[in-house]
Amino acid sequence: MPRSRANPNTRRRLLEEGVAAFLDRGFHGTGIQEVVERVQVPKGSFYNYFPSKEEFGAEAIRFYSESLLERLDQAEADSPDPVSALRTFFESLMEDFQQANYTGGCLMANLGGELEKSDPCRQALAEAFHALRDRFETMLRQAQKEGLVRTDLEATQLADLLIDSWEGAVIRMKVERSLEPLRRCLAWLLDGCFRP
Amino acid sequence: MPRSRANPNTRRRLLEEGVAAFLDRGFHGTGIQEVVERVQVPKGSFYNYFPSKEEFGAEAIRFYSESLLERLDQAEADSPDPVSALRTFFESLMEDFQQANYTGGCLMANLGGELEKSDPCRQALAEAFHALRDRFETMLRQAQKEGLVRTDLEATQLADLLIDSWEGAVIRMKVERSLEPLRRCLAWLLDGCFRP
Repeated sequence: MPRSRANPNTRRRLLEEGVAAFLDRGFHGTGIQEVVERVQVPKGSFYNYFPSKEEFGAEAIRFYSESLLERLDQAEADSPDPVSALRTFFESLMEDFQQANYTGGCLMANLGGELEKSDPCRQALAEAFHALRDRFETMLRQAQKEGLVRTDLEATQLADLLIDSWEGAVIRMKVERSLEPLRRCLAWLLDGCFRP
Repeated sequence: MPRSRANPNTRRRLLEEGVAAFLDRGFHGTGIQEVVERVQVPKGSFYNYFPSKEEFGAEAIRFYSESLLERLDQAEADSPDPVSALRTFFESLMEDFQQANYTGGCLMANLGGELEKSDPCRQALAEAFHALRDRFETMLRQAQKEGLVRTDLEATQLADLLIDSWEGAVIRMKVERSLEPLRRCLAWLLDGCFRP
C-alpha cells in the first residue's frame, strides 16, 4: 500500500510546531529540519504538505490567525457583553505571554517585521490583520449599541486603534519583560478613550 | 606607524550600514561579512569596534534611537508648536518609508520582535523606547500648556498611546504596502482623541 501522502493530523502538527518555532526564533531563524524533527516526520514528506518554506510561513500565519479568532469565539461565549469578551480575550493572551516569560509575543507583529518582502507571507499577514480588525469592529459596534462604547467615533476606527496599540504594546512587553505596557494599553482604551 | 585601531568615521559607517542591513534583512538575516564589505574594511578590524555581533546590534539600536531624537530636534526647530513638530517628525518618517517602498519600517519594532532574548539588545531597545516616549511626553505636556492637547489625561499616557499605536501602524504599513495605516493612526490621535 502506498504511504498516505497527506495526513491532516501531521499537517496540523507541522503548523503548530511552525508557529511555535517562528514565535521563538523568527522565520529566518527557523529551519524546516528542526520543525520536521519535532513532529518526527522525514524532511522529504514535509513537501507533501507545503511546497516551500515560504508557503509554510504563509500557512502558519493563517493557522495562527484562525486560532486567534477561535479564541475570540470562546471569549464571546464566556462573556456577558462584547467589552468583557475583549477583556477576556486579551487576558488569555497575557497569560500565555507571561508563561512564555514575555518572549514570542504576537506572530503577526513579528513576521510583519520580518517578512514584508515575501508576497505570500505579506498577503497572509494582511488578511490576518484584516480578519482581527473586522472581528474587533463587529464586537465594538455591538458594544456601541449596548451603550458600552462611545458612538462619536466609528467602530472601525476604534478597532484599528485597538489593534495598532495592542501590537505596539506587545513589542514593548517583550523589551520590558512586563505585562505593564499591555495593561496600560487596555486601561487607556477600554476603560478610557473608548468609554461613552 | 601602527594602524589606527578606532577611526570614529569607520565606526559610524559600520553603524549606518548595520542599521540599513538590519532594517532590510533583520538581525539574524544579516551577516557581519556583508556589513564590512559595504564599508570596505577587513572583517578582523570590525572587532576593533564591536566585541560581538550582539553588541553591534545593541550599538546599532542606540545609533538609530539617537538619529530619531535628532530628527525630533530638527522638527521642533522647524515648527511653530509641539503638535506641528510631531506631525513634521512623522511626515519625515513616512517619506522615508515610501522611498523604501514600505519595507524596513521601524528598527525598534523589528528588532523588538526578533531580539527579546538578547539582554544587551533588549536593554538597548527598552532604553530607545523610553527615550522616545519621554521626548513625546515632554512635547505633549508643552502642547497641553499651549491648549493644543486635552489635559484630562496625563501627557505620559498620551505619549505611550502615540508610540504604541504608531509602532503597530508601522507593521500594518509594511504588510499593506501603504501609508494609510499611519495616516489613519495620526488622524485619530493628533486630530481626534488628543484634541482638547
